[in-house]
Formats: sequence, structure tokens, C-alpha cells
Amino acid sequence: MNIKRAFSIRGVGKYLPLTSVSSEEIENELDLPKGFIFKNIGVETRHKAMGESNTFMGEQALREALNDANMTIDNIDCLIGASATFDYVIPNRSTLIKNAFKEDNDLDFTCIDINSVCTSFITALDYASLLLTTGEYKNIAIVSSESSLKGLNPEDIETYSLFGDGSAAVIISTTDQPAGLIKYKSKSYTKGVKYTIIEGGGNVNHMKDVPYDPSLYSFKMQGKKLLKNVKSILPIFLSDFFKKQEVTMQEVNLIVPHQASKLGLRMLISLNKGYTENIVDQLENHGNCIAASIPLALVNSIKNNSLKEGGICLLIGTAAGITISSLLFKYTKL
Amino acid sequence: MNIKRAFSIRGVGKYLPLTSVSSEEIENELDLPKGFIFKNIGVETRHKAMGESNTFMGEQALREALNDANMTIDNIDCLIGASATFDYVIPNRSTLIKNAFKEDNDLDFTCIDINSVCTSFITALDYASLLLTTGEYKNIAIVSSESSLKGLNPEDIETYSLFGDGSAAVIISTTDQPAGLIKYKSKSYTKGVKYTIIEGGGNVNHMKDVPYDPSLYSFKMQGKKLLKNVKSILPIFLSDFFKKQEVTMQEVNLIVPHQASKLGLRMLISLNKGYTENIVDQLENHGNCIAASIPLALVNSIKNNSLKEGGICLLIGTAAGITISSLLFKYTKL
Repeated sequence: MNIKRAFSIRGVGKYLPLTSVSSEEIENELDLPKGFIFKNIGVETRHKAMGESNTFMGEQALREALNDANMTIDNIDCLIGASATFDYVIPNRSTLIKNAFKEDNDLDFTCIDINSVCTSFITALDYASLLLTTGEYKNIAIVSSESSLKGLNPEDIETYSLFGDGSAAVIISTTDQPAGLIKYKSKSYTKGVKYTIIEGGGNVNHMKDVPYDPSLYSFKMQGKKLLKNVKSILPIFLSDFFKKQEVTMQEVNLIVPHQASKLGLRMLISLNKGYTENIVDQLENHGNCIAASIPLALVNSIKNNSLKEGGICLLIGTAAGITISSLLFKYTKL
Repeated sequence: MNIKRAFSIRGVGKYLPLTSVSSEEIENELDLPKGFIFKNIGVETRHKAMGESNTFMGEQALREALNDANMTIDNIDCLIGASATFDYVIPNRSTLIKNAFKEDNDLDFTCIDINSVCTSFITALDYASLLLTTGEYKNIAIVSSESSLKGLNPEDIETYSLFGDGSAAVIISTTDQPAGLIKYKSKSYTKGVKYTIIEGGGNVNHMKDVPYDPSLYSFKMQGKKLLKNVKSILPIFLSDFFKKQEVTMQEVNLIVPHQASKLGLRMLISLNKGYTENIVDQLENHGNCIAASIPLALVNSIKNNSLKEGGICLLIGTAAGITISSLLFKYTKL
């Protein structure tokens, strides 16, 4: 395989909020029949950040990744915050996470936020692999940390029961191994830009003018339109992506998709010719964790040895926008 | 000069909101003595987006830049939204701007948001120069569009009178000219992470829990602490940046600083040994336009021929975080 930009994944970490919410609890809350949510949404349980901030969860995941990499925070040259939700409008997510390492507050490595909503981690990984080529950076931390708790409307069963919270951190480093990025592609099909939206909280519907109302300040999804749209573009995107590649989708050792929804994952399986063995599906136990979904699934796959040294891995996701991104890489920890 | 990554600036554009607000009007509103704001804050007039959304302003600036480059939107391979304020929490800024080009809604180039607050444009320009090296992109649009109107507290005179709104777009392209990025550096000194903050509106103080209150949902700045901090780090940052460079700061043809504040610009002049001729100062007529300040000053300088073909230009800014970024480049339009 032709490696375009070498990198190793030196360390991975995650943080899951202490509180788990079962679908049964939500069914009781919303007066739904037992088993309704798992049957229709595909989620059995999800973590919920009740007291944990995005910054705290990001910090915890990064501490675990540093530990895994046998590094300390002063080995990091750049921190990329790759998330859609945030603790504050200003400052940005990455500086807040760096600042959580109070014991090393004199460090001055750069902090940047990337936001391509649910595919932010893929964009950030491509970006980090480019930064490594400059010779200015050796170890780059990418942290995705998401909390959807406040942005969901209990009256919208589909979204209220779909999302979960959590964070993941990945440290990528220069390497002399023949591993790293093979291919990256991202496309934005903005006809569907408002199929997934939080209408309130920005400049268009500002809290100064429009008082809080769960239907305006919560995440909304036009599920059917979205799915129809993705159905029309994803097969072409993937077929283009694998054109001229040495591997087919089914031959990839591990496919780490965004855990968008039950139907979304089913669509991906059908594009994988029904083959499920190489697809990570953790929707049942985590729900859709926005931008943290992909790195969380990647971190779990590395921890449980589903992705082995030298393995070929595909990250693939759809995001609000609608953006589709995918990244093919050869994994090394060395 | 050693060019690290070639690029040309093929087109530039801007949009300024139709409404201008003079300092005299604000002085009348806040019952301040005539001349107080210009004397203390350095701003005489600023544009204010009264009906214009961030997306609309970004679209207008990009249309002007495309026109300047003699291009249409289908020449663009990637759009980077580089701003701190936004129309919606989800989707991201860049997909909304792309979608404003309804007439070309079938285009599928990628859209990404970069956020390093006030220095987002500098980060985005470095990022775009890296993307060009991959051979996958020929023309990348960077759009910064900011509206501070809703996020300011009239009781906080310093910030209420300092900020202005507007947008700027820059199209950078591959080139065979010996021009482009000479050096980029960014550092985040997060001890001061909360010196500039909007406390409300994210997950920590969510509108679900905390009703709108101008003191919580507006931009706050601990001006003295911030300035003291920047005073201690900026001289070292700049002296390091120019070490081993063929030019000194005074020899740079044009310095485009973030229009942070009167005192911030004064500090930069003193670091430039009192030499003001090569420093763009448009605080008086625009105020601090957050991430749009730097590209707006750059666009104006290219339009009025202050930056000429072959000229050496320094972008420099401080941002909430506290992040300091600077980028030295050789300008070509070819």
C-alpha cells in the first residue's frame, strides 16, 4: 500500500461519563412500550455527562492517551479539538483542554479547533498528518469530547434516545514505519445543509431575542430526507474512494464508521456487500456520540485488539452539512 | 527568501454591513462625554450587522473574491470557515456559506471550520497552504465572517464600543511563482484562557438552565490582566519568530495585525521600534472584527496597493486562549 503521509498512533484514551441511561429508563420517562427504543433506534444504553464538562472529559481522555503512549503533556506539540459541542462560545475547546493540565501550565504548544461536525475527527487526523510533514511537530493530540445532554428535546423521541456522550483522544506521531495515511477524501453536499440543525443559540436565533424553547434550542433531524440524501450520495462516494485502491472495502481489516444511526449503519453494511465482520458497531452501548463516535470506536478497537499492528483501517462518516469524509490508513503504534 | 509552501492570493473580497455606528451615537446612548470612546478605545466608527447573518456576509465577501480572481464557485476545491461567531451551533459555518451559492448547489467540494478565535484566519491560511501541497486542491477559499452585535453588554463600555462586524474572503491557489508561506508559528499560553470569555451559551452555562442575562451571555475581557500577559509573551514570541529570518520586523513590507485594541496596536508599534509606516491600523474605522479583522485588513491592503506584487507580509494576532499566531509570506497574485 502506498503511504502518502506517515504517522503512528502512539497512544489512545477515552472517557465515558459515570452515568449510564438505559433505554428502559427513557421508555419509562416518555411512556413508550418496553423495547421500543432498541427495536427502532438500535440503542440499549448510553453514557450521559451529568456533571462532567466537555473540557473535563477531553482532559481525562487525553491523560489516558498520554499514559498509553508513555508520554507526558510536555511531549505534545499541538492539540486539536475536534468536536461539535462546546463548554463556551469563546475561548475554543482546545485551549480549555490544555489549560486543564494545570500542573504544566507553562507549556505553550499551539491549540486549534476543527469542526466538520460529526466527521471532525477524520478532518483533524488528515490535518495532523499534514502538520507532521512540516517537521515542526512530533506528537499531535486530537481530542473529541461531546455532550449532547442539554441539546436534546424529550418530545423528539428519535434524537432524544439516539445520542450518547463521551470523549476520546488519539496521539499521532512521526514514525519511520511504513504506516499512516493512504487516502483521505471529504465532500460537502450542502443541499441538505439544514436537514440536521440546532436552530437556536447562534446569531440567527440568539438567546438575547428568543427565549429558551426546547424545540428551537435542541438538535433537529429530518431523518427521512437525510437518509434519502445519503442513500443517493454515499454509494458513489465510496465507489470513487476505492477506485484504484489495492484493497476493496471488504478487504479492509477494520471499518470504523460514525455511529450515526441504526439505518445509517445498515446502509454501510449493504455497501460492504452484507459483510459485517470488519465493521465496528457500538451503537447499542454508546449511541451516537457526535464527533466522539469515530475516535471512541477507534480507541475501543485498538484497546480490544480488533485493529492490529499493520492493519488497514477505514474511517468513514456523514456529518451535518451534509459532509461525507473518509480516511484510509495503515495502523502502527511504533 | 526561502518559500516553504507556495501559494498565490488569486482573489480577495469583503463585505461590510450597511449600518455604521459612530462612537458619538454610542456616547449618546451610554451617556458618555463626547470624544470619550475615540480617546480611550481608539474607535470612531464601526459597521454593525443589523439584518445580515454571518452566512450572508461570508457569501458576499466570497462572491467579491471570486469576481476578483476571475473565477466562479465551481473553481473552488475547499472552503474553510475561519471565524469565532456563528449563525447556528450545528451545522458548521462553511457548509452554510457554500449552500448560499444556491445556483451551484450540486457542487460537492469540502467545507471545514477552523477556530482559533481571533487568529482563525492565520491558522486557516497555514492549513490551506498545507492542503495545496497534497495536489488534491488548486483553489481554496478562506472566509471569515463575524457579527458581535448580540454578544456585547452595553454596561461594559470597553467591549461594547470596541467591536465591529464584517467579513472577508481570500482565495489562495497553487502557483509556480516563488511566493507563498515563509514561516508560520502559533503558540497557546493557556494560563490566560479565561481572560476573554463568553460564559453563557455552551454546555457549562446552557440556556436550558440559565436564562439570558447580558453579563453572562456577552463577551467579557479582563483587559488589564490580558494586556499584562501579552506584554510578557509577545516580545519573546516575535523575537523568536524573526530569529534566523532574512528580514527584520521593520523591513517587512506590510504588517497586518489583528485589530485587537488601541493598546494592543500600540504595543506592536513599540516592538516595531516605533516604526508605524508598515503597520496596518484600521481600528478607527472598523473596530475589532474578531477573526475577520486580519483578513479584512489584508484585503484592504491588497485593494489599495499597500501590499504589492512580491511584497513581504506579516500576519500577527493574539486570540482568546491566549493564542499568539503569526505567518510571514511573500505576496503574489499570479
